[in-house]
Amino acid sequence: MTDPGPLRFGVVGADHLHLFSIVDGLVGAGARPAAHVPTGAFADAYAAWQTESVACSVDDVLGDPAIDLVVTVGIPAERAAVAIAAIEAGKAVVSAKPGVTSRAQLDAVRSATAGMAGRPWTVLFTERFENRAVVRAIDLVRQGAIGSVRRVSGAGPHTLDAPSRPDWFFDPARSGGILVDLASHQIDEFLTLTGDPDDAEVVDAAAGNVATPDHPAFEDVGSLSVVGGGAEGYHAVDLLSPSGLGTWGDVRLGIVGTTGTLEVRANIDVCGEPGPEHLIHVDADGARRVDLSDVRVDWAPRLLADVAAATESLMSQSHVLAVSALTLDARDRARDWGSGR
Amino acid sequence: MTDPGPLRFGVVGADHLHLFSIVDGLVGAGARPAAHVPTGAFADAYAAWQTESVACSVDDVLGDPAIDLVVTVGIPAERAAVAIAAIEAGKAVVSAKPGVTSRAQLDAVRSATAGMAGRPWTVLFTERFENRAVVRAIDLVRQGAIGSVRRVSGAGPHTLDAPSRPDWFFDPARSGGILVDLASHQIDEFLTLTGDPDDAEVVDAAAGNVATPDHPAFEDVGSLSVVGGGAEGYHAVDLLSPSGLGTWGDVRLGIVGTTGTLEVRANIDVCGEPGPEHLIHVDADGARRVDLSDVRVDWAPRLLADVAAATESLMSQSHVLAVSALTLDARDRARDWGSGR
Repeated sequence: MTDPGPLRFGVVGADHLHLFSIVDGLVGAGARPAAHVPTGAFADAYAAWQTESVACSVDDVLGDPAIDLVVTVGIPAERAAVAIAAIEAGKAVVSAKPGVTSRAQLDAVRSATAGMAGRPWTVLFTERFENRAVVRAIDLVRQGAIGSVRRVSGAGPHTLDAPSRPDWFFDPARSGGILVDLASHQIDEFLTLTGDPDDAEVVDAAAGNVATPDHPAFEDVGSLSVVGGGAEGYHAVDLLSPSGLGTWGDVRLGIVGTTGTLEVRANIDVCGEPGPEHLIHVDADGARRVDLSDVRVDWAPRLLADVAAATESLMSQSHVLAVSALTLDARDRARDWGSGR
Repeated sequence: MTDPGPLRFGVVGADHLHLFSIVDGLVGAGARPAAHVPTGAFADAYAAWQTESVACSVDDVLGDPAIDLVVTVGIPAERAAVAIAAIEAGKAVVSAKPGVTSRAQLDAVRSATAGMAGRPWTVLFTERFENRAVVRAIDLVRQGAIGSVRRVSGAGPHTLDAPSRPDWFFDPARSGGILVDLASHQIDEFLTLTGDPDDAEVVDAAAGNVATPDHPAFEDVGSLSVVGGGAEGYHAVDLLSPSGLGTWGDVRLGIVGTTGTLEVRANIDVCGEPGPEHLIHVDADGARRVDLSDVRVDWAPRLLADVAAATESLMSQSHVLAVSALTLDARDRARDWGSGR
């Protein structure tokens, strides 16, 4: 058996900065940037960065038998169509989150992936995969360090920085809205911590616009409550993070178990220790900051191995589908912010 | 007009340690401990502490015209009857929280207070009134330091320490259950921050027993979501706080406004700065710890002034009734923990 050589990927859609972290991970793990479609706000920057990548059409990417993986970071509402076409062309897909913005898109992706080996459709939930405090927190939970998980509290505030945002960001029809876009991270973490992607239900949700009058359809605040696996999760997201914070958002993840607690301060320990990635573990033995120096961010090699072998080591296809479905459930049942209706 | 002299109070019910902080405040503000009923788990300790107080019957306390105020810290389910009898005897009442454990009790208290001047029935929500970080956070909100309040996130974990708890603590019929007992603090804070006690609604709640199998009826975890005044509040309470924390619970209060955020770490800054009472303020100008050295805990003199003048400076009677009603609403609609039903 001959070595297949490095996996080659093509980029279709370049409308969010997540493109750069995804490709950085893939290239670092040995994949090669074969081709890209030269459209999207970040296409020029991408071409200048990955000079090996050849500009070509979507059909060229999908028709190239040397390309195994399609990376799609277009406008959220356009990602599912790319993913489905790529899967139907026999390729694996890595999508930025959110991977879908409507139930019709989700149903179509579900159909396209049905019966296929491995995980043809990956949505990369970066807050879980790229933050070493979150990675270690999940490891500790799996080792039983806090007993059984019974409460998960996630906060995902973001700085709006309106002038830096493209038009589609303010249009829920194209972005998916705040619960589909931002809360997908928190639902991913909840399902990962509670274990069974098919045992979860959104029981409350709300979204609204409280501070962005220039864009009345835009949602700048949201929350959702999800239950499953004997636990409850409450997840708060917003675009209200004050500009004086010093980073884009004071993202937190609190986990209450039957014998202990974990708290992640993902980006900043505000008015505390310097730097990002803080993890505090409390149990009967005491309270301590967990050393993260040996934590590896390894989603990219695991993803490439999954693509090569049609396996699901990074996460299951059903998990990705379940996260996406729950974000849509939350959006569809969301109350108007601050109201019971 | 002659000086009426110091206000005298009688104690009816001594079943929770809150008795000592309430009486400490009252005595420190100049009130005199006139009498107490010698029943309840802490009655002997109280008598040994306040040697000026005379042991007598309930009827003696209620019939003594020199006693203006009745302090009731009995078993929660028994407090309302004491309060109503005292109000009907023409006295003001200070109750430990919760002040009521059933809707019938609340209706009876509401009837007893209807049409009366001032605030005859005070339930002392100690987390707001005794913690200098909370006091200052509320001051800053009222000064506009974070714009309009749009999200309030409260966490009230407590150490169970089961051997130290009396039988009634494990019986929701006598304690009121976790949402009535513990979450009354958080609802009090939410209504204080959002302003209008009559514009609030519980939209989701859950309670359950996840780690206390010896007491199957006991609720050791709960949460509720409340909306009002254009804001949402999510409040998490539990008896799961790990014994290694170093204090009884890592109580937090997060407030997101349209232009900034406040975070209270009420009892401990876990793995951070020493001591209790921490307040972090973030806005466009930066992130800083707020100096609390000049914050006065002044609920007791304000309460005594309210009793003397039949005023409502500390809080309104309608606020106390609204907090109590919302805790009952939460309990009555609570889902089983981790379930959609």
